[in-house]
Amino acid sequence: MDNCLFCKIIKKEIPCHLVYEDDDFLGFLDIRPKNPGHTMIIPKNHYRYVWDVEDKEIGEYYKVVKKVANAIKKAQETDLVISIVLGEEVPHAHIHLIPRFPNDGHGILLDVMLNRTIAPEEMKKIAEKIKDTIE
Amino acid sequence: MDNCLFCKIIKKEIPCHLVYEDDDFLGFLDIRPKNPGHTMIIPKNHYRYVWDVEDKEIGEYYKVVKKVANAIKKAQETDLVISIVLGEEVPHAHIHLIPRFPNDGHGILLDVMLNRTIAPEEMKKIAEKIKDTIE
Repeated sequence: MDNCLFCKIIKKEIPCHLVYEDDDFLGFLDIRPKNPGHTMIIPKNHYRYVWDVEDKEIGEYYKVVKKVANAIKKAQETDLVISIVLGEEVPHAHIHLIPRFPNDGHGILLDVMLNRTIAPEEMKKIAEKIKDTIE
Repeated sequence: MDNCLFCKIIKKEIPCHLVYEDDDFLGFLDIRPKNPGHTMIIPKNHYRYVWDVEDKEIGEYYKVVKKVANAIKKAQETDLVISIVLGEEVPHAHIHLIPRFPNDGHGILLDVMLNRTIAPEEMKKIAEKIKDTIE
C-alpha cells in the first residue's frame, strides 16, 4: 500500500535490520527497541490488523513468529520472549517479539516509555546473530 | 499436568466462564479482567510457554486466537483487541486477548495494576455473548 511505512520496508525502499525473510513474511529489529533483540514480524500482504490476516495465512504467520521467538531466546540468552499485538502504532499488521531479562526495568508487562539506545553497528550484530540462530 | 491450574480448568475440575472449546484448545474469561471480555486461550496439551507449542499445533492455535479475537471485537463493540503473551503468571501456555476502549484508563499498552471488578452473572453474560458471536 502506498505511504505505508512497513510496505516500504518490504519493498526495500526503507532499510531495516533484517532478521527473517520468506515469500510471505518479514522480520526486522524495531528501531525503538524496548530491549536488545526487539523484533517485529509482519506479513508482506498489507492487512490493517493481525486479526485481518486471512485464515490461510495466519497459521503460517505464527509458525514464523514461533521460529523467530525461539531464535531470539537462544541468541539473546533468555527463557522469556514476550509477544505483543497492539495495532495503533503503524497501520500494517505487526507482532512484537521482545526478549525480557532479569531486572531489565520493564516491570511485569512492559514500560512503553522505556526505549533502549543501541548504536547501528550493534543493531546490525544483534540482527545477524538472531538471523543465524533461526532453525 | 498435576497441580497445573489451567490443566484443572481443562479437566473441568475448576469452573470457568467458557468462551470457546474444541478438541485441542480452550478459551475462557480471565478471572482478573483488565477490561470486560478479557479472554485467555490455551492449548489442552500442557506446554510451558506458547513458543513450546509444537509446529503442527501452533498454526491451529492462532486460527482459534484470531477467531475469538474477531468475536470479542463484535461482541464488545470495539475495533481493537490486543494480544499479549507473557508466560510467567501461570506455567501453562496461554494467550491474553484484551478488548480496548477509548479512555479505558489503560494507556498505550496496558496498566497491569488495573483490574475490573465484574459480577459473576455479568461475566457469564459476557462469555455467552462472545461464545455466540464466534463464527
